[in-house]
Amino acid sequence: MGTEGAGERLGVVLLSGGLDSTTVAAHAVREGVRVRALSIAYGQRHARELAAARAVAAALGIELIEADAAFYGRLAAHSALTSADYAVPGGRPAEAMAAEVPITYVPLRNTFFVTVAAAALESWLLDRIEREGADPAGLEGRIYVGANAIDYSGYPDCRPEFYRALEEVLRLGSKAGTVYGVPMRIEAPIITMSKADIVRHGLALGAPLALTWSCYAGGERPCGTCDACRLRAAGFEAAGVSDPAAGVG
Amino acid sequence: MGTEGAGERLGVVLLSGGLDSTTVAAHAVREGVRVRALSIAYGQRHARELAAARAVAAALGIELIEADAAFYGRLAAHSALTSADYAVPGGRPAEAMAAEVPITYVPLRNTFFVTVAAAALESWLLDRIEREGADPAGLEGRIYVGANAIDYSGYPDCRPEFYRALEEVLRLGSKAGTVYGVPMRIEAPIITMSKADIVRHGLALGAPLALTWSCYAGGERPCGTCDACRLRAAGFEAAGVSDPAAGVG
Repeated sequence: MGTEGAGERLGVVLLSGGLDSTTVAAHAVREGVRVRALSIAYGQRHARELAAARAVAAALGIELIEADAAFYGRLAAHSALTSADYAVPGGRPAEAMAAEVPITYVPLRNTFFVTVAAAALESWLLDRIEREGADPAGLEGRIYVGANAIDYSGYPDCRPEFYRALEEVLRLGSKAGTVYGVPMRIEAPIITMSKADIVRHGLALGAPLALTWSCYAGGERPCGTCDACRLRAAGFEAAGVSDPAAGVG
Repeated sequence: MGTEGAGERLGVVLLSGGLDSTTVAAHAVREGVRVRALSIAYGQRHARELAAARAVAAALGIELIEADAAFYGRLAAHSALTSADYAVPGGRPAEAMAAEVPITYVPLRNTFFVTVAAAALESWLLDRIEREGADPAGLEGRIYVGANAIDYSGYPDCRPEFYRALEEVLRLGSKAGTVYGVPMRIEAPIITMSKADIVRHGLALGAPLALTWSCYAGGERPCGTCDACRLRAAGFEAAGVSDPAAGVG
């Protein structure tokens, strides 16, 4: 359950409202970290997952910061998730999903997400130190991400070496890192889990999986055919449990 | 004037509308790079500099992408530039400006700015490659920043080692870098120049310095007393020329 002692750990969890990030949020809360959640609307074609993020944060009893970054979807328009010029692919063989960078890749999305989360975290850390007198030596910052290198190995920004490089940027580019020596670590607790492992881990933590939303397509009910729906269904099936979310299956 | 040959260089310039970024934009255009400018409104208390960015882009004949990131100012509120809770400091001795991280430090602002510029650049590169059939081997991407390590050595995110680390993140975290091997370099052409050098460089390039805006305070005319106004005035004085901007001095 993490390091015990006099230290204070502040964590910002990137919460999309999907299965993975909801499991990660429950994981962070269970570790005893003071947690804030962050949802970034970046011009997805579906706002449905933001409603899920609100419900999940409320169920976990944590504050949700909502960031309206619609500009990002327009600016990084080369993707099926942000542009109507591309179709969301469905029915691709599993090996294609793992080997290619799919068209659902949004340019530098995870770099952007982690940077925004780190800015919220650093602002929180500086408030604790400079306004409230907290001792920097007892502080630790964490950014929790739901990245997964198994099902999404095609995405360059889901790999551990990318996150190590980004931690170095946060250390070199922040006042928290350079002046106060407070680390801002990127935690990716499910990065090596299979989808079935994530389902099991989420259920064991009591994560509110019934409130989550995974579908890329943005209808009233999950489409059942996009990559996200298929990975989710396969995960629950492999875990041997039924999906508690409404409208699935 | 950069590398000649069959290669195509695409550049995104972070343009605030101030003296430094305007000089950098003129520098990029002069290098023969295909340039787009990017202005990010992040909840500054003054919108005056955005109007300056529009005028500068028009004068240079380059497209301006405007990004409304007001959420960033709220989320990273621990700064005099984004929060009315802090006053903009003025009249500090020059050594204090260089030695401290000033309260005008906005958490991870340059990491955020460069990431957004890199997303616009990668989207442009992917459009050239995947839609328009450009050969990745002949492509190079550049992000131009007006960072300066002389007058702003107190800011951790104005130092060269920070930008080298961020380049590594862009390489590891992008499709352009991992799949196509197209570099996205961060160019900081004025990072080691004094303010007087920047003024001279800008004037030599024919940069539209008369259209620029530097003041932090956000009035109708520059306040003349904030750090930005004082550095600018000292730069023009040391360069031995008068500031062409309206309302100065």
